[in-house]
This record gives sequence, C-alpha cells and structure tokens, in this order.
Amino acid sequence: MEFSKNVFAGRMAGVTGSAIREIFHLLGKPGMISFAGGNPSDDALEPELIGELASRALGRHGARLLQYGATEGFAPLRESAAEFARGAGVDTEENDILPTQGSQQGFDLLLKALIDPGNVVLTESPTFLGAIQAIRTYGAEIVELPMDGGGAIPEAAEELIRRHRPKMMYLIPTFQNPTGRTMPLARRGAMASLASKYGVVLAEDDPYRELRYSGEPLPSIKSFDGEGWVAYLGSFSKVISPGLRVGFAAARPELIRKMAIGKQSTDVHSPLLNQAIVDAFLREGRMAAHMRRLAALYAERLGAMIEGFSGLPRGTRREATEGGLFVWAELPGGMDAKALLGEAIKRNVAYVPGEHFYPSGGRANALRLNFSNGSPEKIREGMAALGEVFNEYGGGCE
Amino acid sequence: MEFSKNVFAGRMAGVTGSAIREIFHLLGKPGMISFAGGNPSDDALEPELIGELASRALGRHGARLLQYGATEGFAPLRESAAEFARGAGVDTEENDILPTQGSQQGFDLLLKALIDPGNVVLTESPTFLGAIQAIRTYGAEIVELPMDGGGAIPEAAEELIRRHRPKMMYLIPTFQNPTGRTMPLARRGAMASLASKYGVVLAEDDPYRELRYSGEPLPSIKSFDGEGWVAYLGSFSKVISPGLRVGFAAARPELIRKMAIGKQSTDVHSPLLNQAIVDAFLREGRMAAHMRRLAALYAERLGAMIEGFSGLPRGTRREATEGGLFVWAELPGGMDAKALLGEAIKRNVAYVPGEHFYPSGGRANALRLNFSNGSPEKIREGMAALGEVFNEYGGGCE
Repeated sequence: MEFSKNVFAGRMAGVTGSAIREIFHLLGKPGMISFAGGNPSDDALEPELIGELASRALGRHGARLLQYGATEGFAPLRESAAEFARGAGVDTEENDILPTQGSQQGFDLLLKALIDPGNVVLTESPTFLGAIQAIRTYGAEIVELPMDGGGAIPEAAEELIRRHRPKMMYLIPTFQNPTGRTMPLARRGAMASLASKYGVVLAEDDPYRELRYSGEPLPSIKSFDGEGWVAYLGSFSKVISPGLRVGFAAARPELIRKMAIGKQSTDVHSPLLNQAIVDAFLREGRMAAHMRRLAALYAERLGAMIEGFSGLPRGTRREATEGGLFVWAELPGGMDAKALLGEAIKRNVAYVPGEHFYPSGGRANALRLNFSNGSPEKIREGMAALGEVFNEYGGGCE
Repeated sequence: MEFSKNVFAGRMAGVTGSAIREIFHLLGKPGMISFAGGNPSDDALEPELIGELASRALGRHGARLLQYGATEGFAPLRESAAEFARGAGVDTEENDILPTQGSQQGFDLLLKALIDPGNVVLTESPTFLGAIQAIRTYGAEIVELPMDGGGAIPEAAEELIRRHRPKMMYLIPTFQNPTGRTMPLARRGAMASLASKYGVVLAEDDPYRELRYSGEPLPSIKSFDGEGWVAYLGSFSKVISPGLRVGFAAARPELIRKMAIGKQSTDVHSPLLNQAIVDAFLREGRMAAHMRRLAALYAERLGAMIEGFSGLPRGTRREATEGGLFVWAELPGGMDAKALLGEAIKRNVAYVPGEHFYPSGGRANALRLNFSNGSPEKIREGMAALGEVFNEYGGGCE
C-alpha cells in the first residue's frame, strides 16, 4: 500500500512548524542583521567554561553520569535549582523540582498531566509561539487574555474564567515574549488568587527573569501561591545556554509526580551530564557575576535599539521594557509588518511579524524585535534600514 | 480552592510509574546482586573519553554548540547516524534521520504523530514496559501478538491485523526485551510485507543489535521496507551511554517531518553537546573496537548466568539468546515469580517478575534476568541464591 498522509493523528492536523523557524531559513544570507531570533548572544555563552565543567563533572561522578538516571532528575541539580527558584520568591525544596528539557518541556508535561481534548487554556494575547503550538497538540482551546502595558488584566481574566472554566492559565509575567511587558506586583498577587479561587492551574513561565537591565526585581506569581495552584517553569536557556536544554518545574508534589510519570514515557530522564554542568555552574556561585556581565552587554544593545526608533515612521509605538530579549513595536495603523518583511529581508534586516504571536491572528501592524544578537553598531544599522523600508513602503501617516 | 487530583487528564489515569523503577527503590541494600536492571555495565562506559570528546567538541564548535539548534538535529550526527543505520541494512541518508532522546522519544514522537485515542497498536507479548506505558498515554488499545522462540509470528499478526485494523505495530526483533529472542530473516521480511500490505506503520525498536555474542547479524526489518511503512528506532544508550540520551529515528521524510513538528513543542531540540559527543564517537571510528570489548565482557557474564540455571528447579525453561542484556526464564507451572521476589530480595538477589511485561498481565511463573551488571562470580553467587529460594519456597515439581 502506498504511504498516505491519512495515517497522521488528528492532534497534528492544525499544527505546523513554528513560523519563526521558517523565517530562520531565510536568514542564511551573508550580511543579514537579524532581529528575528530569541536566542542569547554568542558573546553571552562560555564554551570553554562549559567544557571544563563537563570534564570535571565526569571526573568526579565517573560512570554514574553516563548511566540511566532517575526521571525525577539529578539530585544535586534538584537542590541547586530549588535554591535558584527561591531567588524568585518560590517557596520550594528539592523534592518539588523536576528538571526538564528547557521550560518548553516543563509546559508540555504540565499539559500532558492536565489537558483533555476540548479543555480551555487561557493565554496572554500575544504570547509565546511554542506555547500556542504545545497547547494545540493537546487539543485544547485557547482563550485570549486581553493585555495592557502591565500584562494580562486580572479583572478580564476573572470574567473569562467564569465564562470558559479553563483548566489552565499560561502567563509569562516578566519581560514577556513577545511584548517585553512585566506584570506589576499587585497583578501577580491577583492572578495567584484567581488560580486558587477558581481551581485553575497557573503555569508561570519565567525564563527571562534574570535579564533585568533597569528597575527592581519583582517576586514571582508563584510566591503568592497559597494552595499550590501555580506551577513555576524555570529555564537556564537564556542565562547559561539554550543548547544544553536544561530547565525545571517547581510545583506541588502531586503535580511534579504526574509530570514525572509523563516524562518517563517521553524521554525516560534528562541527560545527567547536562544537569551536572548546570548544577556546577549554580553551585560554584557563578551566576551573579555572569548576569552582571550579560546585563551590561544587553543593556547597551537595548539602548541602541531604542535610539533607532527615532528613524521609524511617525506614530510607531514602542513598548517600554526593563529587560529580556525583545522590544515590541506597533507601526501606524494600516501598515502591515508581514507584508513588509520580504522588503526588509532584501535590505538585509529581519524581524518577526507580530501577528504570529496571536493565537487567532490579527494585529498586522505589530512586530517583535530582538536586540541580543548584534553589536550596537549593527543594531543601529539594522534599525536605519528598517526605517527606510517602513517609511518608503509603508507610507507612514504623514 | 483546595488542590484536587480531579484536575488530571484522562490519559494519565491508567498510567502509573514503571513497576521496574519501583523495584529499583528496593535495591539500595548493601550487598544486593541485582538481575533487575536493564542498563549497561559501569565497566562498559567511558567517562574519561566522553569528557575528552565533550571538551574537544566545544573547542571545535564553540558557542554554536551552546546556542539553540535545529529541531531536525545536529547535521553531523544526522550524517553519522545514517551511516550507523546503514550498518543494519537501513537504506537511509541524513535527511531521513531525526536525533531523539533515546529510542524512547523516537517511539513517543511516532505515537504522537500517528495515534488517535482508540486506535489499536500491536505489540509482542511480553514486550518492553516503556512502550506499553507510552502507548497508554496516547489512549491506544494494545493488542498482543503471540510469540514463539522466533519472536512474533507473522501468520498470527496478519490475522490480528485483519481483525483489529491497527494503526501501528511495535516490534523489537533483535534480542528482544524481555525475552532475548531474535526474529529470523524470513519473519523480518514477512513483517515488513504485512506493514506494507495493510498500511500499518511498523516501529522497529533496535537498541540491542550491536550486542551480539554469538551467531550472525541479521538485517533489520526496515531493510525489507519497500513502501516506507517501517520506522527504524536506533539508540546509543546500550552501546555508548544511556545517560547521554541520544538515539535516532530513520523513516520516510513525511514521517520524520511530522515527528520533528511534534518534537518542536515537546523539547524544541535535543542538546547539541550530547549529539556532538556521539557524532565524534562514531566519526572517529571507535565503535568496532568498543563493541568487541563489550561483547567479550558480556559474553562471559551471559555464560555464567546460563551455568547458574543448573541450580534452578527442575522444569525451569530458559530462552536461548545470542546477545542483548537479558535471559528470560519460566519456572515450573504453579510457581509465582512475583510472590517469590520478596524472599529473593531478603537473600540479596533481585529480578523482574515476568508478568509486568505482558500488557494484560499473566504468566506468573516467568522472570527476566539481566546479566550485564555484575562480575561472573557475583552472577554465579546470585544464581545460587535464586536456586535456593526457588527450590525452598516454590516447591519445584519433584
């Protein structure tokens, strides 16, 4: 019998590859200045140090690091990740920690543990593409939370919870992807209360927290969690290395246990060497100095990008951000960031059109600009090119 | 609202932690001789070499190995894994390879791509526990294929295919877990033909192939695949290291693409460092000498275990095996391997009762014995202790 695409499962029908990853295929061109990525700068990564930590861990633990490990994770990392999470105000200890393959796997396992097809998940709108994709593979319906400059709005969330009885709420409260917005303290408490009041599991995805360039750190939503409805998803991708694929979930024991059972049949356990490398990085107290270096590096780049906005069409709005990797912009109404991307790429500059981040599309005039990959000079050059494209092809509003 | 277990998804209801992993918790006792594991010997692992390969890869590739990578995998590993798969007669090239977190993730992604709840999956009976667990989380029904000493029986498989119209068939044709059985050449061809004739995706899980201590290697089922219905799942867990979590799937491009989309929302991509380590191991031509060393090590241990059968109750049957990690035994009828496990553990020897490997239970008199972890002396000692327990408590058949 000839192979037929009819064999594929229903869950995969609406799920295509990430649009961002498709854009990446266009970026191989020499000289391209990409604001499309979401990765740390190469200058923020430390391959020599990681090689040393790897050799040292293998020297210390020997064959144990190469054997099968516990699905629940490498015990020393559970301990040091719990310590790391306590830095975000999460009241946790090692047994409530599950090391995962980045926070993406933490979210996937949470969905696996909780979602039946047809359940509702609330997300910010716009939100992280990987989350939209994961929610769809579990056959859940996404209901979009309206946002303002302070992120998702608790009053609107409560109304939507009453109306749709969601199983889960997914929030990125700090330097949100794609908007860069940070939820203020009072909203964090309010969101934790809603989760508890209505029995909705709140997935708090917090990969950008350490990347703060101004302002004061805020405690996590999880720090307001009274009855254990908040699952905190941490990641070392943006601060140590995305390629190592190490993150963790911190949640009440019943949830962690269910996620671990889900992980067992997914990949048995996370690689021990990678867990040991991140554990050594944390345990040797390297994080504080490393983050100071990254903050200085990225703050300068963010500054260069903000300057570059002066060349964009009049009426372009820029979201204020104090950290993370992204600046969110809205071009004057009527302009179409997706339609203009091809022209931008011809001029050797790329970004991600904002409409990809809305679960049900729309907002053609928005775009996400990443500032972590490129020197301040390149960022200025790229912003100047964008200004030319947008002013020439977009018409502007003058 | 108090947290309630009612929040969990239906898919997790029937799925508990692996019974084997529960047995492992009993094995911390000092002096325990465990035949319960499924892992390679510590003596087969090379932490010093792996540390060197890691440092060297980071030195050569630099920050690239620590950045985000393609979901489709690290290009050099796709190339070297394709070469490795061709050694099993798989007609493949790098674009048909998806690196995975062990073959467990390969199977999980195949289920994710193909299975809707209520679909039927055929498996050998008994079969690998991790596969049973993964199938259940996707809500599929397992139909058990009868086996004889040559593995699953094609005539019986055809009848069950006609009756149940399965979406997928899961087979471990070489040194099967748990039975150690190897499917002869003619059956391999017959199984590939059935997959094609009826349009059933055949997942060929082949992690033990390199661990052959006698007899001649056989080509994979995938080598008989005419129309692309066979997905080959390879693993480096048993030959290089389980803790690194590196395996791969080799299948037709439509399947690989769908699996990659599924992987994107599961864990984005496999860690690049681990892929680079395995790639270097393969590319530097280390496999042949390494496998000769392992074969000598394990052949001696298998021999010691087989000798030890002379002390087991009369009427005990032992499955013949030419490789892998396991010997499968059936005690005389009426004896209960699960009931006797507690007594065996008191005498410092452990195994896995066979009934855990049957999707619907049964076969109380069977047990799986692993011979890779322990010196020949320890294996003799453990088999002698088992002989005492079984003869004393089991009654025997005299």
